[in-house]
Amino acid sequence: MSLLRVHNFAISLDGFGTGEPQSREAPFGHAGQRLHEWMIATRWAGEMFGRGDGTTGVDDAFASQHGQGIGAEIMGSNKFGYPGWQDDPEWTGWWGPNPPFHTPVFVLTHRPRPVLEMDGDNVFHFLDATPAEALRVAREAAGELDVRLGGGVTVVRDFLAAGLVDHLHLVVVPIVLGRGVRLWDGLEGLERDYQVESVPSPSGVVHLTFTRAGAEA
Amino acid sequence: MSLLRVHNFAISLDGFGTGEPQSREAPFGHAGQRLHEWMIATRWAGEMFGRGDGTTGVDDAFASQHGQGIGAEIMGSNKFGYPGWQDDPEWTGWWGPNPPFHTPVFVLTHRPRPVLEMDGDNVFHFLDATPAEALRVAREAAGELDVRLGGGVTVVRDFLAAGLVDHLHLVVVPIVLGRGVRLWDGLEGLERDYQVESVPSPSGVVHLTFTRAGAEA
Repeated sequence: MSLLRVHNFAISLDGFGTGEPQSREAPFGHAGQRLHEWMIATRWAGEMFGRGDGTTGVDDAFASQHGQGIGAEIMGSNKFGYPGWQDDPEWTGWWGPNPPFHTPVFVLTHRPRPVLEMDGDNVFHFLDATPAEALRVAREAAGELDVRLGGGVTVVRDFLAAGLVDHLHLVVVPIVLGRGVRLWDGLEGLERDYQVESVPSPSGVVHLTFTRAGAEA
Repeated sequence: MSLLRVHNFAISLDGFGTGEPQSREAPFGHAGQRLHEWMIATRWAGEMFGRGDGTTGVDDAFASQHGQGIGAEIMGSNKFGYPGWQDDPEWTGWWGPNPPFHTPVFVLTHRPRPVLEMDGDNVFHFLDATPAEALRVAREAAGELDVRLGGGVTVVRDFLAAGLVDHLHLVVVPIVLGRGVRLWDGLEGLERDYQVESVPSPSGVVHLTFTRAGAEA
């Protein structure tokens, strides 16, 4: 069974997955890097950034699940680019010439563009589709493997609301952002379909996993 | 130094300290007892309710700090009574003839009434005052001891926004309430003045403590 999984999705204590305003210079607005410092410090991130060092505790254990058994990613328009990237034909995402996905990536946007192939194994497809349609297409591309839902906030919320997410890994960072885009809106009763676990890290964050009943396999 | 402390203040994952609508029949609205099951299960609560049993783990350790070294409580109008209690001269709070405070209690309301003495050591004073004024009066009553801020949500938020809280113990319950009264609104950057710790419990809740720098003594 191919699962839909969310990994390393950081939110503030007050539930914001990004600050505001989001821009090309500040993708997370006034949150800056604060939601992701725990991740940047891990060995997993160190290897991804070619830095070659990092922490190896619980933060790294969670972070490194990101790519395990993943055959495709779905992301929202706000993860692929800054507000308005659709008007910039040169925009190819935040990640430079060698993006870290190494699978097909399906970008949800109301203004699709042609397929973008980068660095051999990063192929970006642009879809104007509902969550369920996008998941069907991504599952086909992933074969036997799972599909990762990469964010941003509204996309995770939409897929949760549609009942499509099997595994949700949130990282609660002990800051109060006060403003931005909130994950939880419209998700009353979400816990009913999941087993919820909390694990704190010495870094100060709390890892929160939602595992759908029947999705352990 | 007399501290202002909040204990056993439960919120949902999405930050609601109560559901809605609040009424005499349902003080926490659609949340029912769900925010407080962890507490009701403790030995501390068992003793308070005359039940004589309960859990003795981390939930009980936190819960039982509620009365330690406390000389007065401040509570908001919504903790003392249902919406509209001010029009009910017979209303004496939720707690029956023997309230569990055993100190002076200062109830913030724009419609004060005379002092209410119950069961000898529960004396309710009704104040129309700002947070800082109420704290000054309560500190005087508490003598050398600390003052507890009892809730509800808006009162805790107001005192946090005014920078008056020295110790804040939140209990994050793994449910998504979706609606009610949210603690975090208007508290951007709250973490800057505090050391924040997270401790999970086998019951599923996460205890979150904010300790103000310099307030350990």
